[in-house]
Amino acid sequence: MNTDAFTAHESNVRRYGRSFPTVFTRAVGATIWDEAGSSYIDFLVGSGALNYGHNNPNILAPAIEYLAGENILLSLDMHTAAKRDFIEAFVGWILKPRGLSYKIQFPGPTGTNANEAALALARKYTGRSSVMAFTNAFHGMSLGSLAVSGSASTRELGGVARHDVIRVPYHAYPSQDFDSAGYIDSVLGDPGSGIEKPAAIILETIQAEGGMNAASAAWLTEIQRICRKHGVVFIVDDIQAGSGRTGDFFSFEFAKIEPDIVTLSKSLSGSGSPLSIVLIRPDIDIWNPGEHSGTFRGNNFAFVTAGAMCKMWSDTQFTGGVERTAIKLQTHLDRLVAKFPESIEQKRGRGLMAGLKCRSPAVVSRVHDVAFENGLLIESSGPNRDVVKVLPPITITDVELDHGIAILDHALQEQHNA
Amino acid sequence: MNTDAFTAHESNVRRYGRSFPTVFTRAVGATIWDEAGSSYIDFLVGSGALNYGHNNPNILAPAIEYLAGENILLSLDMHTAAKRDFIEAFVGWILKPRGLSYKIQFPGPTGTNANEAALALARKYTGRSSVMAFTNAFHGMSLGSLAVSGSASTRELGGVARHDVIRVPYHAYPSQDFDSAGYIDSVLGDPGSGIEKPAAIILETIQAEGGMNAASAAWLTEIQRICRKHGVVFIVDDIQAGSGRTGDFFSFEFAKIEPDIVTLSKSLSGSGSPLSIVLIRPDIDIWNPGEHSGTFRGNNFAFVTAGAMCKMWSDTQFTGGVERTAIKLQTHLDRLVAKFPESIEQKRGRGLMAGLKCRSPAVVSRVHDVAFENGLLIESSGPNRDVVKVLPPITITDVELDHGIAILDHALQEQHNA
Amino acid sequence: MNTDAFTAHESNVRRYGRSFPTVFTRAVGATIWDEAGSSYIDFLVGSGALNYGHNNPNILAPAIEYLAGENILLSLDMHTAAKRDFIEAFVGWILKPRGLSYKIQFPGPTGTNANEAALALARKYTGRSSVMAFTNAFHGMSLGSLAVSGSASTRELGGVARHDVIRVPYHAYPSQDFDSAGYIDSVLGDPGSGIEKPAAIILETIQAEGGMNAASAAWLTEIQRICRKHGVVFIVDDIQAGSGRTGDFFSFEFAKIEPDIVTLSKSLSGSGSPLSIVLIRPDIDIWNPGEHSGTFRGNNFAFVTAGAMCKMWSDTQFTGGVERTAIKLQTHLDRLVAKFPESIEQKRGRGLMAGLKCRSPAVVSRVHDVAFENGLLIESSGPNRDVVKVLPPITITDVELDHGIAILDHALQEQHNA
Amino acid sequence: MNTDAFTAHESNVRRYGRSFPTVFTRAVGATIWDEAGSSYIDFLVGSGALNYGHNNPNILAPAIEYLAGENILLSLDMHTAAKRDFIEAFVGWILKPRGLSYKIQFPGPTGTNANEAALALARKYTGRSSVMAFTNAFHGMSLGSLAVSGSASTRELGGVARHDVIRVPYHAYPSQDFDSAGYIDSVLGDPGSGIEKPAAIILETIQAEGGMNAASAAWLTEIQRICRKHGVVFIVDDIQAGSGRTGDFFSFEFAKIEPDIVTLSKSLSGSGSPLSIVLIRPDIDIWNPGEHSGTFRGNNFAFVTAGAMCKMWSDTQFTGGVERTAIKLQTHLDRLVAKFPESIEQKRGRGLMAGLKCRSPAVVSRVHDVAFENGLLIESSGPNRDVVKVLPPITITDVELDHGIAILDHALQEQHNA
Repeated sequence: MNTDAFTAHESNVRRYGRSFPTVFTRAVGATIWDEAGSSYIDFLVGSGALNYGHNNPNILAPAIEYLAGENILLSLDMHTAAKRDFIEAFVGWILKPRGLSYKIQFPGPTGTNANEAALALARKYTGRSSVMAFTNAFHGMSLGSLAVSGSASTRELGGVARHDVIRVPYHAYPSQDFDSAGYIDSVLGDPGSGIEKPAAIILETIQAEGGMNAASAAWLTEIQRICRKHGVVFIVDDIQAGSGRTGDFFSFEFAKIEPDIVTLSKSLSGSGSPLSIVLIRPDIDIWNPGEHSGTFRGNNFAFVTAGAMCKMWSDTQFTGGVERTAIKLQTHLDRLVAKFPESIEQKRGRGLMAGLKCRSPAVVSRVHDVAFENGLLIESSGPNRDVVKVLPPITITDVELDHGIAILDHALQEQHNA
Repeated sequence: MNTDAFTAHESNVRRYGRSFPTVFTRAVGATIWDEAGSSYIDFLVGSGALNYGHNNPNILAPAIEYLAGENILLSLDMHTAAKRDFIEAFVGWILKPRGLSYKIQFPGPTGTNANEAALALARKYTGRSSVMAFTNAFHGMSLGSLAVSGSASTRELGGVARHDVIRVPYHAYPSQDFDSAGYIDSVLGDPGSGIEKPAAIILETIQAEGGMNAASAAWLTEIQRICRKHGVVFIVDDIQAGSGRTGDFFSFEFAKIEPDIVTLSKSLSGSGSPLSIVLIRPDIDIWNPGEHSGTFRGNNFAFVTAGAMCKMWSDTQFTGGVERTAIKLQTHLDRLVAKFPESIEQKRGRGLMAGLKCRSPAVVSRVHDVAFENGLLIESSGPNRDVVKVLPPITITDVELDHGIAILDHALQEQHNA
Repeated sequence: MNTDAFTAHESNVRRYGRSFPTVFTRAVGATIWDEAGSSYIDFLVGSGALNYGHNNPNILAPAIEYLAGENILLSLDMHTAAKRDFIEAFVGWILKPRGLSYKIQFPGPTGTNANEAALALARKYTGRSSVMAFTNAFHGMSLGSLAVSGSASTRELGGVARHDVIRVPYHAYPSQDFDSAGYIDSVLGDPGSGIEKPAAIILETIQAEGGMNAASAAWLTEIQRICRKHGVVFIVDDIQAGSGRTGDFFSFEFAKIEPDIVTLSKSLSGSGSPLSIVLIRPDIDIWNPGEHSGTFRGNNFAFVTAGAMCKMWSDTQFTGGVERTAIKLQTHLDRLVAKFPESIEQKRGRGLMAGLKCRSPAVVSRVHDVAFENGLLIESSGPNRDVVKVLPPITITDVELDHGIAILDHALQEQHNA
Repeated sequence: MNTDAFTAHESNVRRYGRSFPTVFTRAVGATIWDEAGSSYIDFLVGSGALNYGHNNPNILAPAIEYLAGENILLSLDMHTAAKRDFIEAFVGWILKPRGLSYKIQFPGPTGTNANEAALALARKYTGRSSVMAFTNAFHGMSLGSLAVSGSASTRELGGVARHDVIRVPYHAYPSQDFDSAGYIDSVLGDPGSGIEKPAAIILETIQAEGGMNAASAAWLTEIQRICRKHGVVFIVDDIQAGSGRTGDFFSFEFAKIEPDIVTLSKSLSGSGSPLSIVLIRPDIDIWNPGEHSGTFRGNNFAFVTAGAMCKMWSDTQFTGGVERTAIKLQTHLDRLVAKFPESIEQKRGRGLMAGLKCRSPAVVSRVHDVAFENGLLIESSGPNRDVVKVLPPITITDVELDHGIAILDHALQEQHNA
């Protein structure tokens, strides 16, 4: 397998090509093959962008047909039939059944484009410039999103100060004892707190990059209440946790909250094609026409696959399968936690968005390497890179899941023996 | 044609759907059809993202084949065969023939992702936080790119102050008399100027959104000299002007300069599929592995179409055709300028990236509307929206070009008569 | 008494002239007279700038002599005999007896000049830009000091964002339950906290404007330990609480801490003449010559009076008197708290820097007005202006103190009866 | 002369004590004596804070009397008889005769306190955050004033980015050819300029620290016109150039302009005692009571001496003398320029605020040292420290002036011979 082109011509910034030193070619469902013909179970799925597996036929078939028909591929925000079909699919199969009513904005197709649009709109709506964000948050790599991200490495990136951000402790930070929601409520109500009223509070219901920290339903409900009380826009960044990852379509459904703004991307297109949207409570949608834009906001290929994805949620066989798989995964992980107490500190996350907090970064690093050698792709997260991130496709077959877990079990064993 | 879904569910931010009130479905080359079967010549081409026309068969055919083969679609920055092929195509058919040697970074797939990465790297490389940017610049919609953009509307967007930016006058601003390069050289050399040494100077060789202002070769050469003299990174944002738009692949080839960093996106994929890259002078490529990332940086569909696009530049029949088309377009526009002196103030731009500076925004607005009614899509630009932006596909046929210009001529005549 | 000149010509910003609607002329010790000949006990003492009373003869006598002798009055930072005498007095009578060893910087003569210098030096020393500051802090009215101040009104002043400040909860904020020092230690040690390492932590040991909140010795010791642990400069703003206000010369002596930088002003000159200094741990004193300056940093009149003030601290009769007065004041206040539980919530502060937290701003407002009518000047503080600030001269006679407290008692009674 | 106390205990930041290595004790008029009994002519006068000479008897006599009478020394902004007298003197002898009508704000007593207040008020009044300031400007050492200062050394001080400042070229910068006022007018009127409308334009009519650059009357008039046209507050920082320095009381009288806000300090008290005021066009005076404050804003000693200074301007013998002295000084300097063309490039400044731009910093450095050895105190300015700053008291006697100039002539001769 020839990797000379990468070494010679790609920037030093490349990362996964180093941790998985092979060349991949083909992929179906949870399985991915390299040029040498070796197969791997994929528990990384494009950092959560392939929740429906690779080349899901339900999703790809209409796209191939679309592509072959000389249909519009790029349309800015002109009206196209494909875009209309997507809107109808999203409203009909996702929003309506959940009793949600949002306006849909199409920003540039990446998650960070969506978060930048959401923050800009919240600032415009409130006339305030600061935003409240959390310890260990991650919201993207452009400057507005970096500013609200918590980790030291992302903060340093960009080379400029992170302004207009008020950092507050996430659920159970620094410890379970601390009532972080109560603290936020206090400082917002006290004119001497030194903390101005923000335009918005932005959060992930599960902090993926931050270490798979899952907020409780009670805490999320309380944050929504505080936002309502103080007139602050409540933004849920559902880019990684949404689009089905936790088992529900939105990650916040379990808490019965209704954020003012929701951002989606990653698995939204179902196919890995770049797509993102911003869901906006209608009265907040005070954009002027054309005030926010983006060349690739009309990616019609992605509209077609995203529509097909939405349709899947109307199929109870599909949703029932996802539910069963989530339970199965949790059972597997509970067993691993019990089996390897010297390596694993605790299970993290929720549903199919799971993590294993390990005793050290070294544990995680060894497990990663042994797993790869044995045919499993996983990645780590957390400020100290000591969490194994377990993100199988939500459509993974039982056989694939069991096989992947078996490799993980083996890697943990090897690491324990080392 | 049913547009209810847009009205009911899409954010108020939608714009082109309002100015072109129809629903498009099919497109080939420079022609686009709506649901009613009406055809339009496309002089807007996705704001420069479809330089090679809609559904260019040279570009699409390999993509359809790729898609049907269960090949990898999304790969983060893992090694894939499709990515390797693209790198080899870009190096072999674009960089090498031009004597250029750059490292290639794959950020998120939009132009603003690329500019954010370029600015972050320049700041890291120099250890400085400020960046010098120009009057009437446009670099994107995320916060770091908005900060360096010049127009009041984009500056206000985001709702936060634009920090770490030093605004300086572009070529011939505010008038031809003013030696803007000399001014920049002065302030960078004077410890009392109040202007700190920036990490980078970022510019477009033709300011598209800013009104189709084209910098001269002499001015660009002088800016590069000033950057070298003061140890400032020279970034060319070639997102709209590059990828063939001016007739050459890079917009700066005519000036014989070699920027330290170049950003590309829009037409880079050839297909309208989101893709962007950052070209980095090798010694500046001091990124740590994984220091900059992005979920959609491995859009393999776009790699396939981009590779096919690169290959076209090895075909002299193609490049000769582009050259002839550029001359033809300029001749057409010179004729219109001479014919409508009451409406048109001057021709702007260069090669196939052209504009007509009109006497008022009202002229442009009427021309736009009449043109649409008669089957031509064009858009406006400039801080006062008084420039008609003429961006046909660089692969447009003579028949299509003549037809489009005829509609534009008619619209100018109608506006003159009104 | 003619106040037309104020109404006609002074800015609307004037405040005390409104709350004390008379014209003052003469003052000795704790007593001040107006043009009509009425006398008032002064529990406000220039917001703590007249700790040694008005026109203290020990302090003023040498100044009158100095002034009559054609001696240097303003000297920038040239060497003068008067400045040399002050330095020797301050080192000999204040620093040495307390075992302290600091370099002395003379910035501009106001407290905020000193705090700006301290923050600038900490930033230079550490190469970091952020500073950690507390809820309800007040550090001055220039932009650098406003940025670290907590109250909403001061934050809004200046009209620009407050950057480079990390706001953290003060001792016992928001409640006694919350371990604010532990929280600070946590976030400084966690790379994912979203909080960068600051150049300095700046604090008042008693937050005067913030509501007379007194930090405990244990908390101050812990903050000093955290600063040492994380390599953060520890700055005590002793502008209002220092120069004898709490009974000791420095307000932090009771906690046995030794801050890296201390700022003094207000009562430092003893006479009300503007003077401030920055005390710097010698190894932190990395200023270049002339790097920080200020026209009025050589106020020789103030050097003379400040030297006389320093000498007083060598007199045990003086220090014993201050100690007795502090006890007497505290006893008085305990009695008032017990007597007016419906009006007073709790006693605040420490030593001669005392406050009465009342049940509402209205209580404080009425007490203020009735007290003035009966011959007592007091002021309020706190984010909600619900704290009576009790700052008699530390040299107040027993008769004056008893008289002032009697008026306060009467005003509380009147307010209770109203 | 013992300077051990300075070396041992004063911060390394001390500067003038190094360049004038002696200890000063007594001073009258333009003459200052050291402990050894040597006398010096003072052409530095406290960086312009002693325009009326040292210990001017007209100014000091009432102050000594005031001090001896147990009068109020510090009063915050309570009404005092001394403050009322000053207001009446300033209005009656300074404002009224010049047809000016301003509200007077008393901020903290230093120049930078006044500039911070002026900028804050302009931002409040306009609701805008940015301020336009000039190349080579100097406005003070606190963060808000540093931000608008131009020199690299002051910009770096404070350790934080200078935000909310738009830097524009001063009169004749970078060369006489460049129409800087026209440039400012252009960018303020162009929505694509990338430069937002500022709250204020702040400037010095003569840039003292910036190298004694004097703006022309025509340019100042044009800047005022531009401010009016664009609704921008026009602030003149007259801290060093005002209070009589140029020969008129205000430095801008010669241009017949009427700024919206004027700041005064330095020589305002006449005695070297710290005092500053902000003069505000009445309709801009929208401060809330107490919104801006400062402990030392009620320095009654300074009120008394400042009142005496104001009275001097009603005396035509005084004003005639100042006028004659200014002419005499200019004649002297013209002669030196003609005599030492190899050392001096040009005369700078205006009236009694003069400078000699030399061929190099080394020339200035040698002249400074030889002058000191021969009994003359002068200082340098400019971004490259290549300007000799000539600021005699405006009350200097002919004998003192001739003597000082003779020493300067000698020093230039020595430097030329070296």
